[in-house]
Amino acid sequence: MLLDLLHCNGLYETVFMPSATIALNTILRGLNLSKTDTVYISHFEHNSVTRVLYYLQKTIGFKLEYIEVTDNFKYDLDAIKRQFINNKPALVVMSHVSNVCGLIAPVEDIAKLAKGFEAVTVVDGAQACGVIDINLQNIDYYVFAGHKTLLGPFGVAGFVCRKNSSLKSFVLGGTGVDSANKEMPSTIPERFEAGSQNLMAIAGLNYSLKWRNSIGIKSIHEKEKKNYDSLYAILSAYDFIKIYGDKENSSAIISCNFKDYSSDEAGRILNNYGIAVRTGLQCAPDAHRFLGTFPEGTVRFSISYFTNEDDLKNLKSALDEIEEQL
Amino acid sequence: MLLDLLHCNGLYETVFMPSATIALNTILRGLNLSKTDTVYISHFEHNSVTRVLYYLQKTIGFKLEYIEVTDNFKYDLDAIKRQFINNKPALVVMSHVSNVCGLIAPVEDIAKLAKGFEAVTVVDGAQACGVIDINLQNIDYYVFAGHKTLLGPFGVAGFVCRKNSSLKSFVLGGTGVDSANKEMPSTIPERFEAGSQNLMAIAGLNYSLKWRNSIGIKSIHEKEKKNYDSLYAILSAYDFIKIYGDKENSSAIISCNFKDYSSDEAGRILNNYGIAVRTGLQCAPDAHRFLGTFPEGTVRFSISYFTNEDDLKNLKSALDEIEEQL
Repeated sequence: MLLDLLHCNGLYETVFMPSATIALNTILRGLNLSKTDTVYISHFEHNSVTRVLYYLQKTIGFKLEYIEVTDNFKYDLDAIKRQFINNKPALVVMSHVSNVCGLIAPVEDIAKLAKGFEAVTVVDGAQACGVIDINLQNIDYYVFAGHKTLLGPFGVAGFVCRKNSSLKSFVLGGTGVDSANKEMPSTIPERFEAGSQNLMAIAGLNYSLKWRNSIGIKSIHEKEKKNYDSLYAILSAYDFIKIYGDKENSSAIISCNFKDYSSDEAGRILNNYGIAVRTGLQCAPDAHRFLGTFPEGTVRFSISYFTNEDDLKNLKSALDEIEEQL
Repeated sequence: MLLDLLHCNGLYETVFMPSATIALNTILRGLNLSKTDTVYISHFEHNSVTRVLYYLQKTIGFKLEYIEVTDNFKYDLDAIKRQFINNKPALVVMSHVSNVCGLIAPVEDIAKLAKGFEAVTVVDGAQACGVIDINLQNIDYYVFAGHKTLLGPFGVAGFVCRKNSSLKSFVLGGTGVDSANKEMPSTIPERFEAGSQNLMAIAGLNYSLKWRNSIGIKSIHEKEKKNYDSLYAILSAYDFIKIYGDKENSSAIISCNFKDYSSDEAGRILNNYGIAVRTGLQCAPDAHRFLGTFPEGTVRFSISYFTNEDDLKNLKSALDEIEEQL
């Protein structure tokens, strides 16, 4: 069902992992990177990408470059092509939607460029899968997280990859099949799925995928867009709130700061009104360096398909009260 | 609560992982093994230990030895001491209870011997934690699985380790704290816990630990012993069943074979009677090599605190019918 959602049934396999973090470790550490390679990442990668790549860079010694993006959040494909010509990409890793500011990256276009240089392409879809449609034609590995945009439970995530992927195993252990083999089985997904699978979580994800199927990704995207626009309209109406990011090209997430409050203080105040936000660096320090919000971080609001009028009304009255107290 | 169960509160920390497999990968791959080291394992290790060690042996080149055990399943501490004198142990890894035949290893005694040689000691308690009491005095890493003997849900496992452990990180990623650090935080458990924790599974484990506390590990062990003895009495009454292992020193698990049936066939027949067993190599080929059941494997029965008279009665009548059909 996930393969259908990603339009890649027949060509790709699904590999289940306990978390998107382990999925990204499995992919990035299972590739054959070498000292002379150049690895590209966007400015919006999570620590589950950057900490793995910093570690690999220290041990392998490849070059790590940022994919160019303008100050107003535009990816200029010609500029990126020039980057790729100057330093041929061996691997390109991009988050599909930024977990800090919701920015949607043109991952299909950049992957197509990268494939012109025979690079391996990895897209972290933790904040996008099931909401932003995607064509995987030029994408080798697409990572999903069950408990984020897919609205499933904790404990299930993973990636889809081509059936003929040569990726090496990362976590090693029992596979329930081919047990006499001293190494992991070569078949996919068994090559990567060591240990007991979290069957309950996978069943939960299955249920949420069925629900998604019945609604359709287009309707979900439209409803989320509407909720996003409502949230943006509310937040931008207050002079004490400064919003970061690109309104026109973002999904589900808005990062901002409250004048005179640290992001943590603002989070605590909102919590008193029953409004849950994530504050600080959101495990993506590079994104904050780009936004100019490092090291303080931001207050991150997010909506989903299920955000309703009452939620938005509660937020508005909370912000009215906070404004009065300034 | 887990630290209390393991009598190590104050000295050790709990590290949560999605599975015991990932816990064992984290421990074995985070140690500083070198080419001149000798690593000891028992004959009863799961592939979550052996596949990791085979991989490390191939890349690092250390010596891998089996801890001696007699054909009648006795660990002779003097013989093991001689082994350790001949080849000084750098690392000793032992499963506390075999997942194939239930054999309980004298892990405290062997760990004490190993500590005389300054070895690192790792015990895989996946099939023991919460049922077989343990003193961790000479044990550096003790692995637990939430969904096995601890009767919690899938999705939570981990290990306890000394607060001053110098183990390196394995899975890298976001930790929710210290996000600007390009490396994992040095503190424990944060050094090892990258990515979203499975909070629901941890809450489930917490509940099951509370229940265990209210009953007491001694009562649980005694009830399991009683159920084990009943299971043993039933299985050993049939001439067509051959049991493997040491009745006097085993926990919860009995491995056997049915005359004229492969283990998989026997498993399918039992399944028709609503009796769930695990067949084949149970991800521990070394144990079967030792038992003489490689590569066919065994039919593995197991009981728990909750096995009741009806379960045992159903098994007996199923076996009566199977015997008639032989």
